[in-house]
Amino acid sequence: MAAEDQVQRVNLLTSTDDNYGGVIVELDQHMDSATFVSILRASVSHWKLLGKKGVWIKLPIHLVNLVEALVKEGFWYHHAEPKYLMLVYWIPESPSTIPANATHRVGVGSFVMNEKQEVLVVQENSGLFQGTGVWKFPTGVVDQGEDICVAAVREVKEETGVDSEFVEVLAFRQSHNSFFEKSDLFFMCMLRPLSSDIQAQRLEILNAQWMPFEEYAAQPFIQKSELLKYINDTCLAKMGGQYSGFSPVSTSSNFSDQKNYLYLSAGALKSSNSS
Amino acid sequence: MAAEDQVQRVNLLTSTDDNYGGVIVELDQHMDSATFVSILRASVSHWKLLGKKGVWIKLPIHLVNLVEALVKEGFWYHHAEPKYLMLVYWIPESPSTIPANATHRVGVGSFVMNEKQEVLVVQENSGLFQGTGVWKFPTGVVDQGEDICVAAVREVKEETGVDSEFVEVLAFRQSHNSFFEKSDLFFMCMLRPLSSDIQAQRLEILNAQWMPFEEYAAQPFIQKSELLKYINDTCLAKMGGQYSGFSPVSTSSNFSDQKNYLYLSAGALKSSNSS
Repeated sequence: MAAEDQVQRVNLLTSTDDNYGGVIVELDQHMDSATFVSILRASVSHWKLLGKKGVWIKLPIHLVNLVEALVKEGFWYHHAEPKYLMLVYWIPESPSTIPANATHRVGVGSFVMNEKQEVLVVQENSGLFQGTGVWKFPTGVVDQGEDICVAAVREVKEETGVDSEFVEVLAFRQSHNSFFEKSDLFFMCMLRPLSSDIQAQRLEILNAQWMPFEEYAAQPFIQKSELLKYINDTCLAKMGGQYSGFSPVSTSSNFSDQKNYLYLSAGALKSSNSS
Repeated sequence: MAAEDQVQRVNLLTSTDDNYGGVIVELDQHMDSATFVSILRASVSHWKLLGKKGVWIKLPIHLVNLVEALVKEGFWYHHAEPKYLMLVYWIPESPSTIPANATHRVGVGSFVMNEKQEVLVVQENSGLFQGTGVWKFPTGVVDQGEDICVAAVREVKEETGVDSEFVEVLAFRQSHNSFFEKSDLFFMCMLRPLSSDIQAQRLEILNAQWMPFEEYAAQPFIQKSELLKYINDTCLAKMGGQYSGFSPVSTSSNFSDQKNYLYLSAGALKSSNSS
């Protein structure tokens, strides 16, 4: 009997370890569903022997033919993006400690005030404000991987053509069930204009202008909103020099090489450190 | 020829309209893939005639047999949760304006300080700090639909058994690519203890204690972290009465009946209003 006859070769899925005792598989090559199931079963047995816990399988959308097989083998959905679906499985008997998916969308509002105490406002072409005649500050969604302080400046430029620099976060609001089951964090930001000429972006924006703050604040729509009135109060207090929001400081941490922004009341910290 | 012979009955998917010119379909009943495709095609033609734009199909995991058919018809993934997959399609020739999925996970850190200037710290059983001997403040992930100020109190109770009340957000940090492509918003919170007896939760926590702030801050791990040193500075400034973070105010808005928390420098606002 030749040596090779005593050895059974088994194909296993290629995986990498995560930091929590689990494995991550990124599939890319087409496979028929039956072949895949047999390799998957052998792989899970193998990982079980190794004491592995969570199994993550990242399935690009072109491998959609394998989704049904994975669910029938006990996998469930973790999250999805346009081009892939992430499925998970928990090997041990103990309850799964697989972390939840992202829970929040992040938005910014940009309050740009010039030296004449005029605020940069827009009228929107679509959405909740369409046809209302309301003049509002520019708002938008923070892109994946984008810093809040960068998004606030970008939205102003896109909607009005005005260049600005970030000053601070005046306040933020957390709301729930705003987009299916997801929550929303909205950061109200103060910015300083670096230019004044307006070029309204006609796709989303009907019109844009510099408007005296008092006139902006007096709009009935704004007077009816407890939230917007609070925001006006912080803007007024900020203009009067009595309010301190959070400004970004670039910091490193022990956990990664990346620099990240920490937002804090830097002025208060400075005066405290120097005292 | 009878009247009914002149009329062709077509089955269409039941849908509801969204606020942006699109339709939402929530499937629940089992259907074979071929039947589904013919009903889907008739439905998309119907919506196209109506001038509809985005099509959202929410597919519970027990209907996983329809995922492949939807992708072959041109749908793509929008997001997924353990029990369902959301797929989308854009009918018009114009570029899709379908909004992105949630982009951020939200975490809290709880700094609980007593009148003796001792801080409540824990040693963790697993994760990045396992086996390091580091004493750290309690941290955790904000659950779906949970307020930041509620999560901070809950984490302290779960990890240490100590009751506390929320005071304010001292600072927050935004970091990217922290969980696959998703970003992270971490809110550093100050809390006031309402009890002092410690009962460490043995599953996640090795030990918990009240530690003099100076001793906590002197740990080499903390001295090495630019981020944690900044947080210490805010805590020190707060203890000295020179720092004002953001505290939660319950507010309503024009957009929903829900009350939401707005976090702002409420002290600064009060003194400005009363002046």
